Amino acid sequence: MSEFYTLHKDTLEKAIKAKKDRGYWSAYPETPSRKIYGENAAKDGLAAFQAQLNNEFLMDHPNDLGLIGDEKSPYGFDLKISYPAASVDELVKLSKIAGKAWAKISISERAGILLEILKRTNARSFEMAQAVMHTTGQAFAMAFQAGGPHAQDRALEAVAYAYDTMAEIPARASWVKPQGKHDPLNMEKKFRLIPRGVSSVIGCSTFPTWNTYPGMFASLMTGNSVIIKPLSGAILPAAISVKISREVLVEADIDPNVILLGVDSADAPMTKALVQHADVKIIDYTGNTEFGTWIENNAPQAQVYTEKAGLNSIVIESVDNMRAVAGNIAFSLSLYSGQMCTTPQNIFIPKDGIETADGHLSFDDVTKAIAISVEKLLGDPARANGILGAIQNPATYDRAILANGEANVILKSLEPKNEEFEGARMVGPVLIKVDASQSDIYETEKFGPISYMIACDNAEHALELAASGASQHGAITAAVYSQNEAFIEQTEDAFADAGVALSCNLVGNIFVNQSAAFSDYHVSGANPAGNACLSDTAYVANRFRVAASRKLV
Amino acid sequence: MSEFYTLHKDTLEKAIKAKKDRGYWSAYPETPSRKIYGENAAKDGLAAFQAQLNNEFLMDHPNDLGLIGDEKSPYGFDLKISYPAASVDELVKLSKIAGKAWAKISISERAGILLEILKRTNARSFEMAQAVMHTTGQAFAMAFQAGGPHAQDRALEAVAYAYDTMAEIPARASWVKPQGKHDPLNMEKKFRLIPRGVSSVIGCSTFPTWNTYPGMFASLMTGNSVIIKPLSGAILPAAISVKISREVLVEADIDPNVILLGVDSADAPMTKALVQHADVKIIDYTGNTEFGTWIENNAPQAQVYTEKAGLNSIVIESVDNMRAVAGNIAFSLSLYSGQMCTTPQNIFIPKDGIETADGHLSFDDVTKAIAISVEKLLGDPARANGILGAIQNPATYDRAILANGEANVILKSLEPKNEEFEGARMVGPVLIKVDASQSDIYETEKFGPISYMIACDNAEHALELAASGASQHGAITAAVYSQNEAFIEQTEDAFADAGVALSCNLVGNIFVNQSAAFSDYHVSGANPAGNACLSDTAYVANRFRVAASRKLV
Repeated sequence: MSEFYTLHKDTLEKAIKAKKDRGYWSAYPETPSRKIYGENAAKDGLAAFQAQLNNEFLMDHPNDLGLIGDEKSPYGFDLKISYPAASVDELVKLSKIAGKAWAKISISERAGILLEILKRTNARSFEMAQAVMHTTGQAFAMAFQAGGPHAQDRALEAVAYAYDTMAEIPARASWVKPQGKHDPLNMEKKFRLIPRGVSSVIGCSTFPTWNTYPGMFASLMTGNSVIIKPLSGAILPAAISVKISREVLVEADIDPNVILLGVDSADAPMTKALVQHADVKIIDYTGNTEFGTWIENNAPQAQVYTEKAGLNSIVIESVDNMRAVAGNIAFSLSLYSGQMCTTPQNIFIPKDGIETADGHLSFDDVTKAIAISVEKLLGDPARANGILGAIQNPATYDRAILANGEANVILKSLEPKNEEFEGARMVGPVLIKVDASQSDIYETEKFGPISYMIACDNAEHALELAASGASQHGAITAAVYSQNEAFIEQTEDAFADAGVALSCNLVGNIFVNQSAAFSDYHVSGANPAGNACLSDTAYVANRFRVAASRKLV
Repeated sequence: MSEFYTLHKDTLEKAIKAKKDRGYWSAYPETPSRKIYGENAAKDGLAAFQAQLNNEFLMDHPNDLGLIGDEKSPYGFDLKISYPAASVDELVKLSKIAGKAWAKISISERAGILLEILKRTNARSFEMAQAVMHTTGQAFAMAFQAGGPHAQDRALEAVAYAYDTMAEIPARASWVKPQGKHDPLNMEKKFRLIPRGVSSVIGCSTFPTWNTYPGMFASLMTGNSVIIKPLSGAILPAAISVKISREVLVEADIDPNVILLGVDSADAPMTKALVQHADVKIIDYTGNTEFGTWIENNAPQAQVYTEKAGLNSIVIESVDNMRAVAGNIAFSLSLYSGQMCTTPQNIFIPKDGIETADGHLSFDDVTKAIAISVEKLLGDPARANGILGAIQNPATYDRAILANGEANVILKSLEPKNEEFEGARMVGPVLIKVDASQSDIYETEKFGPISYMIACDNAEHALELAASGASQHGAITAAVYSQNEAFIEQTEDAFADAGVALSCNLVGNIFVNQSAAFSDYHVSGANPAGNACLSDTAYVANRFRVAASRKLV
C-alpha cells in the first residue's frame, strides 16, 4: 500500500510547494497530444466511449435499486447507459462500514492511493473528454482540459491542502512541565486524526469532474468515505472516476465502498434524502443558488461547502486598444456558451462613453465593438463549434432564445451549424442594452449566453453597481478595464470587499473565465456565490478532527 | 505600530513552534509569585479591584444606553460596578466602521498589537484574579491561573494558529505559463486577506477570560472587529480585557472600536439580537447546550463556533493503587465544585468490582474509597475553600442541594465554612449510586458538583455506556483506569470514535479537568459538546478569506 506513496511522494511535495508559491504549476499535461498521452490515446478514448453507449456500465458496485440511466448528449443523441443504482440507506450504510478502516490508515498511505487514482484517471483523459463532452455539451478541447487534467490538478490541490494541514499534527508528543524543586510532570500524549464520517459530493451537470474532484479528494484525504451524487444528466464522468477509484482501492486491499456512486433519475431524485441523512457529515455542493441555499439551511448535521452562482461583471472605465479588449470579452462571453460559473453577465459602461488610446468612444461604440468581435469570432462555423460547444440544459437554451426577444438587443444570438453533430443544441451570446436603473432585469442571474450592457452615470457608478450586485447576489469573477491606476486600486478595494476575484485589463489569450489550480483561489467564500473556496486551508481543516489520549510517564 | 511586532516577534515564533510540537510551553508564568510579577503585585491587584467596587468602570467607550451593571460575588457581596452600555445597533455600526482600517494593516502589525495587549493583561493578572474570583466563584489560586496566564496562553495560541495559517499565503505571485514556441503567458497576482466582518464572542460566567480569549484573539488576528458580550453576572474580567485592548489600539493609532464590550442586564438581554444581526459574521459561544444549539441553528449569516456541555465520564476497569486513584478522582470532582466543563459527571464501574494490585475490590469498596478521599480532601476547611471556591449560579447550588436528596446517596455534600467570606455559596460533591439501567438519571447533564457512580455489567459495558453517552450527548473529557493494555487500546478507540479527549490512569498532581494550551486540544468538535476546538487550524482558517487581483505583465 505504501508503494503508491513512494511512487507519488515527489508529486505530492511539489503540489504542496506549488499551493504556497501560487505560481504556475501543473501535474497533468493539458495538451491532448499523442506525444504525451500515447499514439493511440485519442482513438482509444473515443472507442472506449463509443463501446459504452447503449450498454450497462460494468462496475462491481452496490445496486439494490437495479440499473438506472437516461443521459442525453447535448449534441443530439441518447447515451443509453445504465448504471448500478443503490438506495440512500444502502449507500450510507456501506459507506460508514468502509470508512472505519479508511480512517485508520496513515495519511501517507491515503495520499499514495489518491495520487495513484489521479494518475490512472489522467491516463484516461481522452475517454473522459468524450464523457464530459457528451454530458455537458463542452466542445472537445475544453472537455479534455477542464474535464481531464485541469480537474485532476484541482483534485491534487485538495489533496495537498489536506495532507499539509494534517501533517502538522504530531502523532505523539512528550509534555514535561517543570515543578520547581520537584520532579517535573511528565505525560505522553497521542493525537489521532479522526474523520467527520460519510461525505457526500453533489455534482453539477456542466463541470462533472472539475467541480466534483475537490470535495471528493479533500474528504477522502481527510479520512472520510465519499458518496458521489452526480446530476442524472451527467453521470458518466463521475462513474468513470468512481470505477477507477474502486479499482485502486481493491488493489490496495481497502474496502472499495470508501467511494460510492449515487445514481438517481429526474423522476425519483435522492439528493434531499442524502444530504439530510443523519450520518452524512460533510456535503460538497455545486449548482444553482436556490438548492445550494436550501442545503446550507437544512442540513445542520453536516459541514456544508457550496459553490452556487452569482452576477459576474465587467467594468469598463478606459482602454488602450478597444479592439483587443472587445476580442477578449467576446471570447469570454462565447466560451461554452456562457455556461461557466465564471462567465461575465453584466458589463457596466459609462453612458457618456470611455477614453481610449485612439480617442473617445461613445457607449454605443463600445457595445458595438464587442458585438462585432462576437460576430467575427463565431463567423466561422468550425471555430464557433469549438468555442461554443452545445447547451447542456434545454432550459438554458430556452432562456437564451427568450432573451433574444427582449427590448434593446444589441446582438442576437448566432446559431452556427454543427457539421459533425446535426442535433447539437447551440446558441451564441445575446447582448442586450439596459439602463443602470433597470436593476430588476440585470440583477437576476440569467445562466447561459445572455449579457447585459449597462449604461451607467460614470465609471464610479459602474463600479458601485458591479460591487454591490456582487455583495448582494454573489459573484465569482469580475474584470475591469482601466488605464487609470487610481481607478484600478479603487476597483481592487471594492471587489476585495465584495469577495470577488478580479482580473485587470485582460487581452490576448487569457480570459476572466479561467481559474488555474495552485494559483487562483476559485470562489472566495465571502459572498453569496458560495461559502467555500477550491481550495484553501479552510476547505480542508474542518473535514477532520483530533482525538487525544494522554497518560503519565 | 510595527514596534510592537519587533518587541514580541520572538514570543510569536515560539508559540507557533509550540503548537506544532505540542509539548509543554507557556508564555505567561502561572505562579502568582512576587519574584515574577513584582513585590507589590498582589497588594496592588487587590487594591485596584477594591477601588473598582461601588464605582463606575471608567472607559472611553460608546454608551448610548447609559450605565449598566449588577454583578454579585459568589462570595456574598454585590460588586456595584456600572459599565458603559451600548445598543446592539450602535455596537455593530461602530464595529463595522472600525473594522475597515483594522482589516488593512499587515498581519505582523496586528500580531504585534495583540501580543502587546496580552503582555499588559499579563501584568495585571493579580487584579484579574480578583475580578475572576468575585464573578465566577473560583478560589483565588485558580482564578489567578485560569483567569490570568492560562487564559493568556490560550489567547496566544489562537494568535499563533491564525498568524501561521495566514502567513502561508503570499501577498504576490508571478504566474508564468509556458506556451510552447510562443511567449509564455505572464501574470502578476495579488492576494489580499479579507476578514469576515464583525465577530461577536459570547462569554460564560465560569471562565470569562479563558473561554473568551480564543475567539476574541482568533477573530482579531484574522482582521475582524470584535464585540465581547459577557454574561451579565461576569462582566468585570471582560471589561478589564477590553479596556486594556482599547488603550493599546489607541497607542497604535487604531480606532479602539475594533474591540467593544456589549453589556446587558438579565432583564433586557441582548445576545439573541446580537448573534442574529445581519452584519455579525462570526460567533463564538461558550455556555449551556440549549442556547448554544439555538445559535448553531439560528444564525445562518455567521460562522458559529461553540463550546457547550456534555457528559464527561470515568471508566474504572482495574487499578494499581486504589487510594492513589481515589485521591485523584476526589480532587477532580471537587475542584471549583464541579463547575468546569471538564469535570467528570459519570463514573462507570463494574458491578462485581475491580482488580487492584492489592486484590479484588467490590463496587462498594471502590465508591467508598472515592467518598473517603473527598471527605479527607475537604476535611480541612481552609484547604476545602482553596479547592471548591464558591458556586457561581444559585441554580447550580440548588441543583446540588436537591441531588443530596436523591435515592442511594453515597456521600452527601460537605459545606465547609469560609472564614474570609461568610456569605460564600459553597457546596462539595454529592456522590450518588445508580444502576446502569437508570440512564434517565445519569444521561442528563447535571452541571455542578454532582456525580453518579454507575454499576455496570462489566468493564466492556462500562466503556460502551460512557462512549455512547458521549456520542449522543457530547463530552469534552473522559478518563480510564485500567492495568490492561488491551482494554486501554479499546478505550482509546471508543473515545476517539466519540471525539472525546482521554486521560489514562491519572494519579498524583495531574487531573482530567486540566487542559494545557499548545498541547491539549480543548473540545474535539466531533460530538455534541461543541463544534469547535480551542485551538486548531479549523478554528482560524475560515475567519478570513482571500480576495485576488491579477493582471497581465
